[in-house]
Amino acid sequence: MPPPDPDLAEILDTVVAAARSATDRGIVASYIPALARVDPQCFGIAVATADGRMYVGGDADTAFSIQSVSKVFALTLALDRVGAALWRRVGVEPSGTAFNSIVQLEAECGIPRNPFINAGAIAVADVVLGDTTPPQALAGLLDFIRDVSGEAGIAIDAEVAASEAATGFRNAALANYMRAFGTVGDVDGALALYFGGCAIAMSCRQLALAGRYLMLDGLHPEGHRPVVPPQRTRRILSLMLTCGHYDGSGEFAFRVGIPGKSGVGGGILAVVPGRASIAVWSPGLNARGNSKLGSEALEQLAAATNWSVFTP
Amino acid sequence: MPPPDPDLAEILDTVVAAARSATDRGIVASYIPALARVDPQCFGIAVATADGRMYVGGDADTAFSIQSVSKVFALTLALDRVGAALWRRVGVEPSGTAFNSIVQLEAECGIPRNPFINAGAIAVADVVLGDTTPPQALAGLLDFIRDVSGEAGIAIDAEVAASEAATGFRNAALANYMRAFGTVGDVDGALALYFGGCAIAMSCRQLALAGRYLMLDGLHPEGHRPVVPPQRTRRILSLMLTCGHYDGSGEFAFRVGIPGKSGVGGGILAVVPGRASIAVWSPGLNARGNSKLGSEALEQLAAATNWSVFTP
Amino acid sequence: MPPPDPDLAEILDTVVAAARSATDRGIVASYIPALARVDPQCFGIAVATADGRMYVGGDADTAFSIQSVSKVFALTLALDRVGAALWRRVGVEPSGTAFNSIVQLEAECGIPRNPFINAGAIAVADVVLGDTTPPQALAGLLDFIRDVSGEAGIAIDAEVAASEAATGFRNAALANYMRAFGTVGDVDGALALYFGGCAIAMSCRQLALAGRYLMLDGLHPEGHRPVVPPQRTRRILSLMLTCGHYDGSGEFAFRVGIPGKSGVGGGILAVVPGRASIAVWSPGLNARGNSKLGSEALEQLAAATNWSVFTP
Amino acid sequence: MPPPDPDLAEILDTVVAAARSATDRGIVASYIPALARVDPQCFGIAVATADGRMYVGGDADTAFSIQSVSKVFALTLALDRVGAALWRRVGVEPSGTAFNSIVQLEAECGIPRNPFINAGAIAVADVVLGDTTPPQALAGLLDFIRDVSGEAGIAIDAEVAASEAATGFRNAALANYMRAFGTVGDVDGALALYFGGCAIAMSCRQLALAGRYLMLDGLHPEGHRPVVPPQRTRRILSLMLTCGHYDGSGEFAFRVGIPGKSGVGGGILAVVPGRASIAVWSPGLNARGNSKLGSEALEQLAAATNWSVFTP
Repeated sequence: MPPPDPDLAEILDTVVAAARSATDRGIVASYIPALARVDPQCFGIAVATADGRMYVGGDADTAFSIQSVSKVFALTLALDRVGAALWRRVGVEPSGTAFNSIVQLEAECGIPRNPFINAGAIAVADVVLGDTTPPQALAGLLDFIRDVSGEAGIAIDAEVAASEAATGFRNAALANYMRAFGTVGDVDGALALYFGGCAIAMSCRQLALAGRYLMLDGLHPEGHRPVVPPQRTRRILSLMLTCGHYDGSGEFAFRVGIPGKSGVGGGILAVVPGRASIAVWSPGLNARGNSKLGSEALEQLAAATNWSVFTP
Repeated sequence: MPPPDPDLAEILDTVVAAARSATDRGIVASYIPALARVDPQCFGIAVATADGRMYVGGDADTAFSIQSVSKVFALTLALDRVGAALWRRVGVEPSGTAFNSIVQLEAECGIPRNPFINAGAIAVADVVLGDTTPPQALAGLLDFIRDVSGEAGIAIDAEVAASEAATGFRNAALANYMRAFGTVGDVDGALALYFGGCAIAMSCRQLALAGRYLMLDGLHPEGHRPVVPPQRTRRILSLMLTCGHYDGSGEFAFRVGIPGKSGVGGGILAVVPGRASIAVWSPGLNARGNSKLGSEALEQLAAATNWSVFTP
Repeated sequence: MPPPDPDLAEILDTVVAAARSATDRGIVASYIPALARVDPQCFGIAVATADGRMYVGGDADTAFSIQSVSKVFALTLALDRVGAALWRRVGVEPSGTAFNSIVQLEAECGIPRNPFINAGAIAVADVVLGDTTPPQALAGLLDFIRDVSGEAGIAIDAEVAASEAATGFRNAALANYMRAFGTVGDVDGALALYFGGCAIAMSCRQLALAGRYLMLDGLHPEGHRPVVPPQRTRRILSLMLTCGHYDGSGEFAFRVGIPGKSGVGGGILAVVPGRASIAVWSPGLNARGNSKLGSEALEQLAAATNWSVFTP
Repeated sequence: MPPPDPDLAEILDTVVAAARSATDRGIVASYIPALARVDPQCFGIAVATADGRMYVGGDADTAFSIQSVSKVFALTLALDRVGAALWRRVGVEPSGTAFNSIVQLEAECGIPRNPFINAGAIAVADVVLGDTTPPQALAGLLDFIRDVSGEAGIAIDAEVAASEAATGFRNAALANYMRAFGTVGDVDGALALYFGGCAIAMSCRQLALAGRYLMLDGLHPEGHRPVVPPQRTRRILSLMLTCGHYDGSGEFAFRVGIPGKSGVGGGILAVVPGRASIAVWSPGLNARGNSKLGSEALEQLAAATNWSVFTP
């Protein structure tokens, strides 16, 4: 392994300092108590590089609710289960609407636009569920994340899972609506798995570790055996770039230029093919529902490292 | 200069052969006579590589109406004129709707979602127009394309320009609608420039040559002086990837993984950063309004060359 | 009581004859078996006049599923329970969209446009439910209909109610969606009452009898004691005219000119203030989801009797 | 002629007094200077009864810009010209959207929902225009209004007409959009007639006089010769009830119960079949774009007189 990159360590220091001193930190999600009480001053970042190094800054070891970032892992499992047949149930286009919009479903006959809006992720959960029970499927999802990250301690936050289920009426509406069109088969099961996945708690370090298979064209970071075929890996990255930040995906691609997936808990997983798996966390959200300081930190990092996928 | 790449030449042969023998060739645009009478059997491809080589196949020297591909060059000029102030008039998000939809404009107060849907391109044309006349601005656009391509013979197809203007009521509706919100200042001038730009005729070879500055991080292919700053070049590429194929942009990114911009004349300009500027042309369109065989050819080419931006 | 009106009897004969011989009879609803197997040849009509007469034609004594016609009676009960406070939860505007659309709910923050689209009727059911159980509330609704009609035998079709509940995913989506905004409190209870109300079976004769209080400015047909205040009665009639036929309400008002409420079972209740309470039934529906021959029969009847509310 | 109705005179006095003392008077339209400078304290009302009497109150003889109230007269002329063929170009359904929305046009292929939203009225103007010039057609519209009102002095406010044309970009967008679908043939001509009609200036007295043919089932108030066939008159009244107040039509029908048509100048023409033609004017508008005090005055008047079409 080569020696650590002092420039990258310095860049992270600069990024962390900027985030620490920011006054406009966005708005922390408040729809459930467990999210509402997170300290908006929190900020963490972790960068796992292709040469096996890990660079961290800020609250990189504090666990947070990964929420929709889990949709990347669920998508990986669903594609492993049914392959391209998944795309008969879910589209691959940016939505042009808010993350929990039901309008598009009506216009397009119950087929969600992509696997990263709520409706699409519920349809993906229904596929991951298959013939198993929600606890079994959730255990499978956790096992996958633990395996690719090498972090056996990753777990569900039970309070978050219960709160999500107790207040998730819009998601229940989406699931029932898709059930009417046959996109979803088991409304209650898909919702249970979906809520459970959103309630996974991870630190930036753990999340950056978990994303390495996407950086490595689908290889497992330990042993480099294939976890996901290369073409499928690239397609997951493409979906992250075009759809990973809800209706702010275009702006994230424009400003940062790196495939990423955000969660309402303030986390973002960003993956530079062949270079780095990056996790950032700051709980305050911008108007599009993505981490405000997290997005800005990734923009700074990308500018300083030239890590855009659009860089020659 | 290194010797030509025999593999790439062979790949192009395979791509051309597949396109020649395809039976479902899509539907040729028929809203104006000059487009309707183009032979659906046409297929051309040209690849300009970063090392200065040119590889061609099929009808690579037949001129066609580049239509919306011109929006890439107009965007480049508008950014050169007003810089980031452009983004006060035009967004950077995928539209989630058809190319000529007016619905989004109403929901978002006259600000088009991105510079590549018709409304956005008309707003861009209004910026390019500035204080000049439409003929002057159109001459400036042609000059830019001739300069970066090194092809002095590129010209407007006057019949196409006249037909566009005579039938462009939906575009006139978009322009008037944006005028009501102040997004556009000169309805008639912006439309005249817009229709003129759409009527530019180029061959695949010329178009691939013209796209080289985007491949080269903004450098002019002759002499390598900066034409566009690097960050702006990457942002144009990002917009091509997320918005370049109307409501089929997500699928193009998913299948091909290369920034591209399509036109209703059947042309596509696709740019692999640091690698290649590719033009393909086949007049039949798919359901999203993008060249059917052109899209498929680029998918084959990307798979054979590993030229996705998501490849490590 | 004056003698029967021979002209009216003759008009009904003509209307029945026209309906009997019609070849294009619309499409029978098929989303549940109990509706799908109804004979499309059925046609019935009943006219209860203000002078206490009853005129019938065709299958006027065959019970059918009144479906959404029940929304008129549920609205009457909800207004009796909470008065004008109902309008904080439900609007009074025509929807401009299909009967089961969820799009409008998103645009207008979970407040359904009117009490006769599905979402509005579910919100009304939640109000009627109050603190009671669905069986109690349903019994109350039946009691009201039996009382104003004088027909003690009116009952729920249990098969229809069970089928509605088993397939009602779009309605479950609407209810959950409104629950997210607080428009509905008890999703399962409101749905149970809603499905039960839709499953009430009545004949044309019974339905015309049940509608008499609306013809009589709110007086009970027996004894003429007030059931509903006059102003409220007129407002119910206004809602029937502007919203009673889903997105075909404008056309029904335009062609027939009489307040009416249709159901997907093919029934329509139409009320001419001070003149007549009319029920018509033919199971085939037009493109807007309203009884095709029923609408046409009412147009003929209105033309022959001059019973439009727009007649001097 | 019977003696004047002292009760009605007294009711008008009460209505005027309430309007005079109202503090929340709505917002005066400000998109053109001629409307913006109208005194919000103005309030006028005029009631022409079927027995030939006229009752007035407040500023009943002050001319104001009738704006969209003119759409009733233009519709009458268009139906006179082409009869029911008009309904191939324009629908009869409430819009469910704002008066100048272009969204619905896209969803429904360029056919406006009804003749009283802006798009529908522009399509109606195109029909009224026929083969004539805009000045000729406008003269014909004025002649009709002068004839049915008996008021030869009614005229166009040239300043308003010029301002409308100079700022009417949204209407130009609607017209161009409909031209793309063939709903409108002559964009500039239809717009010129439309803007001219909106600029007609009338007093409440004149407007109430002009509306009498609708009260009289289509008969001319002088001599009682037919101006409009009875069925067509009733259909115009039905459209006024279901569509006459834009997206506040349902509420107007609910509260007032009388067919009416409002204009952004603050005028409303309301017609009680067989009873009264009523004009009211107060320039401040409510959130739906209808005269705030005018609507409230009509609600009071209807309650005091029992003049709802839903009264037995």
